[in-house]
Amino acid sequence: MAERKENSGTCPVARGLDCVGDRWSMLVLRDVERGMHRFDRLQASLGIAPNILSSRLAALVEEGLLEKRRYNERPPRYEYVLTDAGRDFIPILVAIGAWGRKHRGEGALSRLLDRQSGIEIEPEVIDRVTGAPIGSRPLDLVVPEG
Amino acid sequence: MAERKENSGTCPVARGLDCVGDRWSMLVLRDVERGMHRFDRLQASLGIAPNILSSRLAALVEEGLLEKRRYNERPPRYEYVLTDAGRDFIPILVAIGAWGRKHRGEGALSRLLDRQSGIEIEPEVIDRVTGAPIGSRPLDLVVPEG
Repeated sequence: MAERKENSGTCPVARGLDCVGDRWSMLVLRDVERGMHRFDRLQASLGIAPNILSSRLAALVEEGLLEKRRYNERPPRYEYVLTDAGRDFIPILVAIGAWGRKHRGEGALSRLLDRQSGIEIEPEVIDRVTGAPIGSRPLDLVVPEG
Repeated sequence: MAERKENSGTCPVARGLDCVGDRWSMLVLRDVERGMHRFDRLQASLGIAPNILSSRLAALVEEGLLEKRRYNERPPRYEYVLTDAGRDFIPILVAIGAWGRKHRGEGALSRLLDRQSGIEIEPEVIDRVTGAPIGSRPLDLVVPEG
């Protein structure tokens, strides 16, 4: 990972992707958010090899998106919960889901409903300052000197 | 990729990640959006091996996020442009950048300014229906039967 991090430099997109720029890592975050906190449950949901799941969990803990907690003393058993940084990534997954629904939406799909209204959500990335959707107004990229 | 796609099933997040669930693919989209349309330019920006860049570009074309266009007849030369589906993914990268800025923001970082106002954008994923940020209201996941 060291080489990747050097390459990321001053780009916050690349820095973010250094932490979670992997399909499995993102799906692990999705499942933990859905209440799957334990290794066996995650493995059953994702259908991946144990060594791959182990490495992704360890990386997410190291990057500070998951916390590993002992829930049983003897034998020692652990579960994984989202940190604040991990929870902050969930809306990005929701936005990826909206993209998947729009561009790969054939057949039955799971949906996210606003609990209070019962209405399906329509995720969108906006600029909080102007309220405008990202992509609807021209932006300028400012790269630091040096 | 075939196995992955079967695993994705009814989850739109997994379906989206099947198309672009890879750090390099996302960084290629970022750079094409920034005006880097040609292989050599992308390779210089990303600093990756040519065969890796080739495979990512081919996958993004196959998945319909990039279009490969011939810009010179003799010798044949190609460039890559975003499709509508590719352009729809850019706000997600902007949201990842906001996450990177918040959680990996040490030192100098590039910034995105609203061109008209000159003010730095503050990307946020919201639900267009309620206007509320994703994560601020409880949601229910509805999985299709069968």
